[in-house]
Amino acid sequence: MNTANPIAASRIGALSQAGVAETNRSRIMQHLYHHGISSRAQIAKALRLTPAAITKITAQLIEAGAIEETGGLEGEKNRRSIGLALDNTRFHVIGVKFARSLVQIGVFDLAGHASSLTTLPYVSNDTIDETIATVHGTIERLLDDDPTILTIGMAVPGPYLRENGHTAVVSSMQGWRAVNFISEFAESFRVPALIEQDARAGVLANYLFDPETEAGNANLAYYLVGEGVGLGVIDNGRIINGSLGTATEIGHVSIDVNGRPCDCGNIGCLERYCSTPAIHQMIIDDGTLIPDAATMSHTEACRKLFALANAGNETALGMIRTIGRYVGYGCLIIFNAFNPRTIVIGDIVSEAGQPLLDEVKRIVKERAIPEIYASTTIRLTSTPTDAAVLGAAAVAISYFLDHPSEFFNLK
Amino acid sequence: MNTANPIAASRIGALSQAGVAETNRSRIMQHLYHHGISSRAQIAKALRLTPAAITKITAQLIEAGAIEETGGLEGEKNRRSIGLALDNTRFHVIGVKFARSLVQIGVFDLAGHASSLTTLPYVSNDTIDETIATVHGTIERLLDDDPTILTIGMAVPGPYLRENGHTAVVSSMQGWRAVNFISEFAESFRVPALIEQDARAGVLANYLFDPETEAGNANLAYYLVGEGVGLGVIDNGRIINGSLGTATEIGHVSIDVNGRPCDCGNIGCLERYCSTPAIHQMIIDDGTLIPDAATMSHTEACRKLFALANAGNETALGMIRTIGRYVGYGCLIIFNAFNPRTIVIGDIVSEAGQPLLDEVKRIVKERAIPEIYASTTIRLTSTPTDAAVLGAAAVAISYFLDHPSEFFNLK
Repeated sequence: MNTANPIAASRIGALSQAGVAETNRSRIMQHLYHHGISSRAQIAKALRLTPAAITKITAQLIEAGAIEETGGLEGEKNRRSIGLALDNTRFHVIGVKFARSLVQIGVFDLAGHASSLTTLPYVSNDTIDETIATVHGTIERLLDDDPTILTIGMAVPGPYLRENGHTAVVSSMQGWRAVNFISEFAESFRVPALIEQDARAGVLANYLFDPETEAGNANLAYYLVGEGVGLGVIDNGRIINGSLGTATEIGHVSIDVNGRPCDCGNIGCLERYCSTPAIHQMIIDDGTLIPDAATMSHTEACRKLFALANAGNETALGMIRTIGRYVGYGCLIIFNAFNPRTIVIGDIVSEAGQPLLDEVKRIVKERAIPEIYASTTIRLTSTPTDAAVLGAAAVAISYFLDHPSEFFNLK
Repeated sequence: MNTANPIAASRIGALSQAGVAETNRSRIMQHLYHHGISSRAQIAKALRLTPAAITKITAQLIEAGAIEETGGLEGEKNRRSIGLALDNTRFHVIGVKFARSLVQIGVFDLAGHASSLTTLPYVSNDTIDETIATVHGTIERLLDDDPTILTIGMAVPGPYLRENGHTAVVSSMQGWRAVNFISEFAESFRVPALIEQDARAGVLANYLFDPETEAGNANLAYYLVGEGVGLGVIDNGRIINGSLGTATEIGHVSIDVNGRPCDCGNIGCLERYCSTPAIHQMIIDDGTLIPDAATMSHTEACRKLFALANAGNETALGMIRTIGRYVGYGCLIIFNAFNPRTIVIGDIVSEAGQPLLDEVKRIVKERAIPEIYASTTIRLTSTPTDAAVLGAAAVAISYFLDHPSEFFNLK
């Protein structure tokens, strides 16, 4: 009885305002999306809706082309019943990842399989406008080529202010702050574009697509360690957003209140110690391991370091351990602030692989509360595509599943 | 459209499993609790239930004595309609706060007004068993004296492992770790006892009772700075719990990874810098301001310091500023990790008052992202009773409102 969530009930009240009919349509779409082919009876039972309601709503969805009937399904008592399905391959979405110098655009089906993935030319502070124009052009072309594209998801660096459309800080690439993603993209295309903070998109991708995420794992964190450091958290089935949409901004939590200053105004932000720009600086400061590091991009320098470590270079391995320690400090913040069951580490720094993970786990084991350490899994991402661009697709797919009447004629 | 919560719909599915009938009863109880006297038509409209459903459920609740009809209510088109009410003064709950050396037990009505409040004798590591026995005896006596007591809420120091009943760390009072609150209390009385982490209980108290919390403020943090440092967060209407119930444990987030070691295994935990034991040590180390500080309890030493600061003592004011800086570092963690709209600072350290709050705001303004600073209110608690003991009552009240069928004969 001590697990009661005291204000859960008031939540239902808020949700029901959104429209009971649309909510039930969405629940049926979600059920078919997550469980595959199901009979009307199975759906009725799982969602606690009456058979009459199911019959009415599914007829509407079939008529509109959102779902379809399939062949017979083995039912209870060996009676065969008709199956219903949401065809994951029939509809597509676009996912766009904005990550400072790296912008990627992919087309995905509803199962998260990419049918195309384009990486735009390297972006600098001076070429942001050009990049925005290229994004517009690329999306328009993709939409022209594929009439089954339903919606667009975009993953942008946090802290992203979801009401005003701006990212509040973009360490080392402040030019992005001038972009208003909502006015720039939200209603520019024949389909809606949804914008989400990148790591929050990433946790959604892990939730929807990662085969290693146990089904229905509702306490999940995606810890993005790349050009920025970000975090997305699903707590007991719901994404933590905050008032302005800038919760779970772990990159700007300080690990040393007397440490390195950050562009955000804070001192000692985690991002200043283990993002790719911070690692790049560490390599340049070393001077000898990668002598031409200064001429490389952040990502190139980091990948060179990881390759050297993989080849057994001791200096490189020492640096990976230093990075791992900082990534581990971040995990400790995640433990104490969010207590997820699983932390998935993703983006470029996760490419450092096992030596990094070993050091992360070592520092976490040393400093965590034992009961929490014992019940939390920390692992590297295993999604086939970068979790943020896949996450952008996941944002689009979730929007589609939540709002069927915006995509089909469902009076 | 960018504010869509992508996995909201799946949440409804989970909740509806809990029993549609009980959920609707609970929603009606909650509506009457939060909105006062309402007509059946008003409830039907607010909750989007059919008039037939409302008639049936309210008849059941009236019959069972959970709610009652009141005199006529001015309705639409000047038609008078009968009002329904949940009488906040008719039922009582017990709230118990366990805070290391301080244990308090109060009896409250559903509006959070205390009809009695008992502070138990000072607890040391050696007298915990004795204290537990006293708690049992006191509760039994209160239950015997007042048949309207429906349930008991208990607030315990975090990180509290909600499934296994233990607090995982209690800095400076590890003896509490041996207590299993669930087996000790959950089913020991004629009414159920619910156990919750103290700061989470505190945020619930602020949500239910604090007149300064704007109605329906759904992004609220209660920042407990006392013998421990804790945090409870309501994010968009729901409490953040974590997988084991140990989320929002800000007291064990490090502010300096090379700083002071903590009992929890981590280094530089916030709790090591601004809890009352840390402040007490600061006073003892000073040596001259309060020469007999070592003979005082943590709370006594802190209150003496606050009194000196209030009287204008410059050394005391300097210490308050130091404490305020650390409390402010905690606010910065809360900003970046949880992005609430309001942070309420409570417990003993909040008694330092305006000089503390001024310093907290100064450091936060200096280091926060401007857009987040501008939209977040930081203030000292204004609940009449300590928020954790009131929070314990709030936990009990919420459980009652969520589970009416456990308290009334509602077949």
